[in-house]
Amino acid sequence: MTRGRFVTLEGGEGAGKSTQLRRLAETLEARGIDPVTTREPGGSPGAEEIRRLLVDGEPGRWGAMTEALLHTAARRDHLERTVWPALDAGQWVLCDRFYDSTMAYQGYGLGLGRETIGSLQRLALGDFAPDLTVILDLPVEEGLARAASRPGAEDRYERMDRAFHERLRAGFLDIAAREPGRCVVVDARGTEDAVQAAVVSVVERLLPPR
Amino acid sequence: MTRGRFVTLEGGEGAGKSTQLRRLAETLEARGIDPVTTREPGGSPGAEEIRRLLVDGEPGRWGAMTEALLHTAARRDHLERTVWPALDAGQWVLCDRFYDSTMAYQGYGLGLGRETIGSLQRLALGDFAPDLTVILDLPVEEGLARAASRPGAEDRYERMDRAFHERLRAGFLDIAAREPGRCVVVDARGTEDAVQAAVVSVVERLLPPR
Repeated sequence: MTRGRFVTLEGGEGAGKSTQLRRLAETLEARGIDPVTTREPGGSPGAEEIRRLLVDGEPGRWGAMTEALLHTAARRDHLERTVWPALDAGQWVLCDRFYDSTMAYQGYGLGLGRETIGSLQRLALGDFAPDLTVILDLPVEEGLARAASRPGAEDRYERMDRAFHERLRAGFLDIAAREPGRCVVVDARGTEDAVQAAVVSVVERLLPPR
Repeated sequence: MTRGRFVTLEGGEGAGKSTQLRRLAETLEARGIDPVTTREPGGSPGAEEIRRLLVDGEPGRWGAMTEALLHTAARRDHLERTVWPALDAGQWVLCDRFYDSTMAYQGYGLGLGRETIGSLQRLALGDFAPDLTVILDLPVEEGLARAASRPGAEDRYERMDRAFHERLRAGFLDIAAREPGRCVVVDARGTEDAVQAAVVSVVERLLPPR
């Protein structure tokens, strides 16, 4: 059996990741691929419990290193219980956020740095990596406005200061520049349809020819 | 102001750590030292929330690496919020379990190995280390029998198999052999009074002369 493909969507708050992920799943289904859709932090029962500690409460609830460790713990559980079994069974997995978010949020945004976060991910996950990462890029102002208009209380990161979100955006762009073989940046300012068309054209490279 | 001293008590299930820690605190109080007593996993509000994920539920609830990351996240929070502020304020801190437990339980007991756990601790905590670590050593049979007779439901580790607990005990003894300057093994088979006398005689080295 061929191993499945692992595709991650990344970006700051309000970039449209969950909408684009759902639409990408529909597009793949129309092509005869039935993907698992999942998210981080979370995606397995244990990781969802850890998620509750991370997305609620005051911005200063956890120090940066504690937060990076909690995200990485949730990720390891998610991989063992959800992602790896699906890939081994030949399924595609589409994931809303993955380790680039830890690099961007805790490495760049909260200042832990590339080396510390990179070492932590390698220690915890080995050399496992996505086959493809789509980074949805949006000016900070626009992303935060979109995020604020959503219902729901999981706003701990949204409430971090403006400079944090600027470092985050610059971080994602730097990650993409360093790994051009894996990461593709998509301009998320367009309409939902336009962004989806761009996402699909990127994912096309992993698809068998029609 | 002189920085406080950080003393950790380690050992397997039922070794008598919490009893001996409480008595050591009383002994120090009688010598004019007012120590902070704390425990891991836990010891700060956030770390106590993480503790709940670790000490309850089925033995196989978490994989070994996820568990090591959760313990280390709790430890980082505990250090930042409780231990380091107290030490900086000149207080002694007595802690029931610290990073040697992660090495023994996840490194030796669950097989992640010395190198992985050592790297994770250095990454998360820097080179911070206890001034003194007392390891209470007890045959596995005796420790598990003592632990089983205690009230309380935090028995996830107690319920791991016998071979796990043997690796744990051997792990603690190996840690002590590798760091004889920091670690002292105390035979925990004696009466509570006899063990306390041995613990106090070890801690004596950190005390100012009477």
